[in-house]
Amino acid sequence: MNLYDKRLSRVRTAMHEHGLDTLILTPGAAMRYLSGFSETGHERLLALIIPDDQPWLFVTPALNAAQVRANLAGIADVRVWDDMQGWQTLLRDICTDLTLDIGILGLDDDMPARFSLAMQALMPTTLLKLASPVFGPLRAVKDTHELAAMQHAADATDALIAPAYAACTPGATERDVAAAVQNSLARLGAEASFDAIVATGANGASPHHHTGKSKLQTGDVVVLDFGAQLDGYHGDITRTVAVGSASDEARRVYDIVYQAQAAAFEAVRPGASAHDVDAAARRVITDAGYGEFFIHRTGHGIGLDDHETPFIVAGNRGKLLPGNCFSIEPGIYLPGKFGVRLENIVFVTEDGTAHAFNQPIAPEMPVL
Amino acid sequence: MNLYDKRLSRVRTAMHEHGLDTLILTPGAAMRYLSGFSETGHERLLALIIPDDQPWLFVTPALNAAQVRANLAGIADVRVWDDMQGWQTLLRDICTDLTLDIGILGLDDDMPARFSLAMQALMPTTLLKLASPVFGPLRAVKDTHELAAMQHAADATDALIAPAYAACTPGATERDVAAAVQNSLARLGAEASFDAIVATGANGASPHHHTGKSKLQTGDVVVLDFGAQLDGYHGDITRTVAVGSASDEARRVYDIVYQAQAAAFEAVRPGASAHDVDAAARRVITDAGYGEFFIHRTGHGIGLDDHETPFIVAGNRGKLLPGNCFSIEPGIYLPGKFGVRLENIVFVTEDGTAHAFNQPIAPEMPVL
Repeated sequence: MNLYDKRLSRVRTAMHEHGLDTLILTPGAAMRYLSGFSETGHERLLALIIPDDQPWLFVTPALNAAQVRANLAGIADVRVWDDMQGWQTLLRDICTDLTLDIGILGLDDDMPARFSLAMQALMPTTLLKLASPVFGPLRAVKDTHELAAMQHAADATDALIAPAYAACTPGATERDVAAAVQNSLARLGAEASFDAIVATGANGASPHHHTGKSKLQTGDVVVLDFGAQLDGYHGDITRTVAVGSASDEARRVYDIVYQAQAAAFEAVRPGASAHDVDAAARRVITDAGYGEFFIHRTGHGIGLDDHETPFIVAGNRGKLLPGNCFSIEPGIYLPGKFGVRLENIVFVTEDGTAHAFNQPIAPEMPVL
Repeated sequence: MNLYDKRLSRVRTAMHEHGLDTLILTPGAAMRYLSGFSETGHERLLALIIPDDQPWLFVTPALNAAQVRANLAGIADVRVWDDMQGWQTLLRDICTDLTLDIGILGLDDDMPARFSLAMQALMPTTLLKLASPVFGPLRAVKDTHELAAMQHAADATDALIAPAYAACTPGATERDVAAAVQNSLARLGAEASFDAIVATGANGASPHHHTGKSKLQTGDVVVLDFGAQLDGYHGDITRTVAVGSASDEARRVYDIVYQAQAAAFEAVRPGASAHDVDAAARRVITDAGYGEFFIHRTGHGIGLDDHETPFIVAGNRGKLLPGNCFSIEPGIYLPGKFGVRLENIVFVTEDGTAHAFNQPIAPEMPVL
């Protein structure tokens, strides 16, 4: 049984467990996981339809038909619509053929409302649910092939650190640093996992700052958050550095975040919960008096999506399993001053420890 | 009345016309149009809520709160949730406060199912509809401020042509050419409107080819499709060139597409329909015997989204209005051989003509 047949079989088992009769997936990680086909989403319907007991099929606009037919899973039933007729008629016919209108339909979590609401209108008696309970647990446990792909993405991501650091000079803009990352990605033949975050000085107090025209100045603390994507698998890393010199406060905050990151890493083992890992990082930061400035969860799963299950967040009592891949990225954000975040991607090994895909984090804030 | 107040007032009038009691918008063009705030979508709920008769408000995760509070429209009611509590409780309270559960709710077309299905579950008696009938007609008519922004994006897009052409040398890969475009974008301080399409030889027969490792060879026809995004407004252009030499067939097909693009441009005037413009391009290609190889609509509206209304497609009898901005991009795709597509962005003027934002297209295929 090939990779894609195996995944389909597991997905169908999970569909039965969750009471889903059919899945409809638009472009994204779930489609790629099952079929090997990827495409950025757009306003034209491109969908993979997976009935529980009949052959799966693709629906595609004419302009993607040749690409869809080359899908790695070898899905042969590819139904094509063109811009003149639209997709509604074709989908209505398929719904009738497959009697989708009397079942429970699972949609990928990213499906845009333009499609999900139209499907509900086409099939008013169908109950729509999210397909994530089917895919989450399966995709959260990476097989050896996927772990190798994650390591490749992490290696490419690590290779971005040196050029990013080299670009962090007084007078350079945040965008200049992001451009250095982008150029290195192109040289590596990789894509960006997401838009690089370069946040200097007070901008760093916004965890998801939009990289802009601010200039790096001597003494600035700079948060650098970027990742390389290879074969669909995502890298993601955060480093925090100082330009020219670092204040005592910046060094102290860095040390706390470093200790928090290490404590969370130590807490990772099969059977520990995501909650435990979050708590390990949070305790260090809270004990140091900065608890109110750690304004996000400790991490997120990663793979074909840059954010996926398991989420390393308080209250998530789900047990970690060998093969789980996720970020550990505590941070402290001081409004008007600076932010510090440190992130590596790790996975849970069979032998009960954690393995970091990325290079070790410097124990003291790098001063560039 | 400032820009954002004006837009809100028009949107509320349109909400009444379409019977929508409240809008909920997740990050994207509609949110940016109304509030000036932009953010890439992610798995955390960030939403702008617009009741028809009460003040509007933002819901945001804690890590985006500072950015959301700086929204250009001055929306002061910003309600924050954190990763530990999640967003469901906050949204449920808001639904109760605003009595959303007894109304008709308009969602942005891009809202992911993870939110739209959760909202339906939170408010089972609420009828969900798409908000696009409200936004489509308003956003399709650009004001002078927006037309200036579109011209800036087009100018930046045109500035990418020369570096892209310079990169089209025998032995270069498609990705090398895309990297040259990306580097030029960074120098211009612009973002990409979308991932650049570089499709050489037979790859060009797929209109949305995924730029890859194929090498450009002498005699190849290469489709180049890219755009610069500035201040949220999108550029989009397609040129087709030959490397080293062009076959007679390639020159002939180029000429047909060129004539089709020109015919569609000539057909643009206030009061003409989108259908008419599509038909003008299609007639040229069909008359030349290539009708079956023009496998997509002639164009799409463009602005804060790279694809938006009006769509220039057969059957769209909507009349063009002054201020409409859209692409004219006919193409011929010969499987196993090559593709030719030529695209400029145009707008409909008050005085009854079309204006191309972009530089004129070369009447004969450029041989590089």
